[in-house]
Amino acid sequence: MIGVALVGGGFIGPLHAANFAAHPLARLTWVVDLDLQAAESLASRHGAQATSELDAALSDPDVRVVMICTPPRTHAALIERAARAGKAIFCEKPVDLDVRKVDACAAILASTRTPFFVGFNRRFDPTHRALFDAIRAGEIGRPEMLLLSSRDPEISPPDYVAQMPYGIFYDTMIHDFDMVRWLLGDEIVEVFARTACMLGTVENPHRDPDTAMVQLRMKGGALVHVNSSFRAVYGYDQRIEAFGEKGMLISRNQQPTSLERHSADGIRQDSLLRFFIERYAESYRRELDEFVRAIDGGNAPSIGVADGRAALVVADAAVESAKSGKAVSVAG
Amino acid sequence: MIGVALVGGGFIGPLHAANFAAHPLARLTWVVDLDLQAAESLASRHGAQATSELDAALSDPDVRVVMICTPPRTHAALIERAARAGKAIFCEKPVDLDVRKVDACAAILASTRTPFFVGFNRRFDPTHRALFDAIRAGEIGRPEMLLLSSRDPEISPPDYVAQMPYGIFYDTMIHDFDMVRWLLGDEIVEVFARTACMLGTVENPHRDPDTAMVQLRMKGGALVHVNSSFRAVYGYDQRIEAFGEKGMLISRNQQPTSLERHSADGIRQDSLLRFFIERYAESYRRELDEFVRAIDGGNAPSIGVADGRAALVVADAAVESAKSGKAVSVAG
Amino acid sequence: MIGVALVGGGFIGPLHAANFAAHPLARLTWVVDLDLQAAESLASRHGAQATSELDAALSDPDVRVVMICTPPRTHAALIERAARAGKAIFCEKPVDLDVRKVDACAAILASTRTPFFVGFNRRFDPTHRALFDAIRAGEIGRPEMLLLSSRDPEISPPDYVAQMPYGIFYDTMIHDFDMVRWLLGDEIVEVFARTACMLGTVENPHRDPDTAMVQLRMKGGALVHVNSSFRAVYGYDQRIEAFGEKGMLISRNQQPTSLERHSADGIRQDSLLRFFIERYAESYRRELDEFVRAIDGGNAPSIGVADGRAALVVADAAVESAKSGKAVSVAG
Amino acid sequence: MIGVALVGGGFIGPLHAANFAAHPLARLTWVVDLDLQAAESLASRHGAQATSELDAALSDPDVRVVMICTPPRTHAALIERAARAGKAIFCEKPVDLDVRKVDACAAILASTRTPFFVGFNRRFDPTHRALFDAIRAGEIGRPEMLLLSSRDPEISPPDYVAQMPYGIFYDTMIHDFDMVRWLLGDEIVEVFARTACMLGTVENPHRDPDTAMVQLRMKGGALVHVNSSFRAVYGYDQRIEAFGEKGMLISRNQQPTSLERHSADGIRQDSLLRFFIERYAESYRRELDEFVRAIDGGNAPSIGVADGRAALVVADAAVESAKSGKAVSVAG
Repeated sequence: MIGVALVGGGFIGPLHAANFAAHPLARLTWVVDLDLQAAESLASRHGAQATSELDAALSDPDVRVVMICTPPRTHAALIERAARAGKAIFCEKPVDLDVRKVDACAAILASTRTPFFVGFNRRFDPTHRALFDAIRAGEIGRPEMLLLSSRDPEISPPDYVAQMPYGIFYDTMIHDFDMVRWLLGDEIVEVFARTACMLGTVENPHRDPDTAMVQLRMKGGALVHVNSSFRAVYGYDQRIEAFGEKGMLISRNQQPTSLERHSADGIRQDSLLRFFIERYAESYRRELDEFVRAIDGGNAPSIGVADGRAALVVADAAVESAKSGKAVSVAG
Repeated sequence: MIGVALVGGGFIGPLHAANFAAHPLARLTWVVDLDLQAAESLASRHGAQATSELDAALSDPDVRVVMICTPPRTHAALIERAARAGKAIFCEKPVDLDVRKVDACAAILASTRTPFFVGFNRRFDPTHRALFDAIRAGEIGRPEMLLLSSRDPEISPPDYVAQMPYGIFYDTMIHDFDMVRWLLGDEIVEVFARTACMLGTVENPHRDPDTAMVQLRMKGGALVHVNSSFRAVYGYDQRIEAFGEKGMLISRNQQPTSLERHSADGIRQDSLLRFFIERYAESYRRELDEFVRAIDGGNAPSIGVADGRAALVVADAAVESAKSGKAVSVAG
Repeated sequence: MIGVALVGGGFIGPLHAANFAAHPLARLTWVVDLDLQAAESLASRHGAQATSELDAALSDPDVRVVMICTPPRTHAALIERAARAGKAIFCEKPVDLDVRKVDACAAILASTRTPFFVGFNRRFDPTHRALFDAIRAGEIGRPEMLLLSSRDPEISPPDYVAQMPYGIFYDTMIHDFDMVRWLLGDEIVEVFARTACMLGTVENPHRDPDTAMVQLRMKGGALVHVNSSFRAVYGYDQRIEAFGEKGMLISRNQQPTSLERHSADGIRQDSLLRFFIERYAESYRRELDEFVRAIDGGNAPSIGVADGRAALVVADAAVESAKSGKAVSVAG
Repeated sequence: MIGVALVGGGFIGPLHAANFAAHPLARLTWVVDLDLQAAESLASRHGAQATSELDAALSDPDVRVVMICTPPRTHAALIERAARAGKAIFCEKPVDLDVRKVDACAAILASTRTPFFVGFNRRFDPTHRALFDAIRAGEIGRPEMLLLSSRDPEISPPDYVAQMPYGIFYDTMIHDFDMVRWLLGDEIVEVFARTACMLGTVENPHRDPDTAMVQLRMKGGALVHVNSSFRAVYGYDQRIEAFGEKGMLISRNQQPTSLERHSADGIRQDSLLRFFIERYAESYRRELDEFVRAIDGGNAPSIGVADGRAALVVADAAVESAKSGKAVSVAG
């Protein structure tokens, strides 16, 4: 059994904690949180120990893995400490919001030969994965265009927005930038981005972009479109469309039930699932399973620090493009 | 050009008149209706002559085809007169509601060698036809079960209902009984039927069945279900499902537009087309085209008096079964 | 924590064992199986004890619930022993295949005041439940027709078939008969059934019916159709359609992914889920959760022995009808 | 009856000819084509006269409308001659490929007060129109993003391509640029475009762009994406998606039949309609009907020369952007 110390008990932490606890090869050993009460509450649910001191967990020889679920600005320091303690790392995305710090992390991870995984969970969604597999199997031949819609039903709370300007690129589309690279097996070389503030001043008091459209060009020539909004009132909208010489693949949205209601007003189906944790429940399970099995088997996890860096560089370029109104080249 | 005398200018008459008028091989020559004004109104739209006297049309040597669109009880006499006048006949279904009169018609048609077509138009619907073709091509292997839903958005006016008791079998399901025979290429040997009056006394004052469910068995062993209602508030519901050893085929409903509306309340599409004339517009065109080309080429039309008889016999058996509560055998 | 003794470690047993083990209010305490090795294997996965002697489990005061997952012919005796030992019972359907034995069980359960639940899990499927809720909320007004398709991708092994003749009614459609009663809140009063052997002698050597179509009439007048087959090559086909005065509700099938593949050959989606354990995974979880919470709260479970009896009586009537070719009345 | 002289009997000409001939208020009077034989062949089908001399038709007082279906480079001169002859004009898009010539046409049309319609037929497609109506009715509130996919199953023949470089903008997306303006009721102010040659040298010997992606910004702030390809092997792909503060509208593709085929390999539906003349058959009928009724009623047609100009200006900007790699401003 692989002992896991989970750092950061809020937000996505409980989800990962439950998945580790349910995994046949893993065991949640510690929950680390500055808020000791929160740590205890989560730990007790899974028979783990709680602490507000990371060292307590790092010094436990039963701990082989550190799972980082804290806010992004804390990631780099935690990565360094965990790596120096000889623990494998599962880090929620992004690695960091500063490329230089990501590079520093990469250097430490390399020198300590630390197994490292960054949580681009969407790669593990069964339908997205089936789309990936179909591309790789040559079903649509060479991919020529890729379209991604990535829309949230609501904007994050003002506090959260204030801490991460241009979160639409750094927090949301960073997933899509990763998906583009992964699906096409190619690097992004050009970014053109436009943003808008469509929400009102009540929901979006900081006037940070809540709507964005991005056009990318790949090294191999494929053209890519990504759009995002923070008010898809009909639910969490997550679609991917890959167009190629032999056809098209679409990863469609998913609904809570498959009920169809026919009336004089039309035919009605459920709205989309609203919460990313519901929509991507299976992908969270699968990414963790893959990570645990990689650690267990002594293999490198499939998504590394270089992937985290590449998506961040595109997000930086998107900000620059949105500000300048010019297409920005990226060293793909 | 094949000259056509259309008898019966009401209801479905204008539709057939327009289709004949637009056909490259046919010409609408006469419109015959007891109501001369109605005949004139329709005739003038297509450059035809109008009369209230059938003989005027029958004695016109330019007339090669008589199209019968009058109420069912008049069909047998019209068939006899047209046949004796040497005209080919396109008769709206049913041939007649009395099997003995159908048999008499059949005898006259045989002795006069009259080309005769009964208008089971649904066989010509592109989607139903594609389903037929797929069965014939062996896509589902041997068909084992067939399900038909055949529902109208509303009941006919009381006058119409009064003239044809058990119209749910004689007017509506008679189409389905024909479709079953055609799709399976097999004969119905057993009928079990149940009916109900679900509508209120305002819409259905004669308490004639407005809802029916029928289970059939085919000579070859396949099992069949048919259901019908006269208040499908969501539109004209026309579905066929064929299940067999290698798969399933479904002829789905059709909608006026392909618009999809996403809101917090769900995903909404258009209701179904409401009117049979819209839903089956293409099948009316295609049955007439096939008929005209058969006449033009000297070939027998594809649906004959024996088909009209077979469907009627099943409707009779359905009435008997609904009344007795027992399964009724049919000489398939 | 509610201690559970699971009797019968094969087939569906491991699924229920895992669901009990994961439930926050329950604990799998014993696994009982004549095959001690099988019991041990399953028990060890969940930290439970294993035995081949039911009394060992029944005499454990920590056991509050007995879960019966053994073959049907053993249910009645197990129910009696568990009831006499004062345990609440979760019994896989059917209660028994002999109505008299079901009645005897009912008497014992009543006299011992034993909480009893029969596992008609489909009632807990989220989409079927949403359909139920929509009917109850009056969305389609009075239900007039109900159609159920209930098809398996393959027939059970010959041994299994040999033990339960007419399994298509007793094992498969018994679920549908229960669903009909539950969805309509009404009793079945008439059954007309036809069966066929469509499979070959290799797959179906005992020539037990592998295909069936049933037409039911409800006390309140609604008409019902149910069909079943043991070779739906395209997957486990589970659809329900409720038609009423104000509209129609359809519980559609479900697919493993929502990928859509467009090529010159057409638009292709995944086949249906093939295994009932996948298709109804959520309903198994939910029925067990409801049961555990009922026991925990001292409330009666929602599906009792009378429900098990009612569905069985309809299955008996279906066999009688299929054999006689006549509609059979049921005391609704 | 409004007499129509149709100029240009090839390609789209016969379609418009048939639609005029079938219209209750119009009559095809002349077919004009340099190839007299082609003119005669088409004219004879509709009882019209044929000529290779435009003046013959223009001097006929029965002619009230000139329908221009010739290649784009001839449009300006024909418009001038028809306008000077006092005829109303229905001109296939584009008005011309040179903005200065469009301006000259506009001046002549204004000074002669000629009723003029440019054939952006897609505005009349029932589903696109329903989407437009829903936006106007406020169903999605303020539109924030618009996505259009506009893909042909194959590239035009090399000769045709050679005559119109960047046809992907001038011939194909010009429709989309018009749709964007119409649907949003707003003007395009910025264009960023990227193109690619994805087809092989056999199909695309002139290496004119066969794939394009464009990002637009509207005066009112909405963001727009358009993509196009000349090898959608799965059919003529025509989708529009409008996203706004209250929801999303999608104009989905259409298929020849609604047949669904279930097998072990999946669920298969028809490919899309392949030909724009089939896909937009109804929109061609409706635009012509609207035009004829406008002329008949003495009203201005709904799509004028200013609309033709505006779409052309965006196409010019798209070419400039694709060449320079920079976003290009348009005077909206």
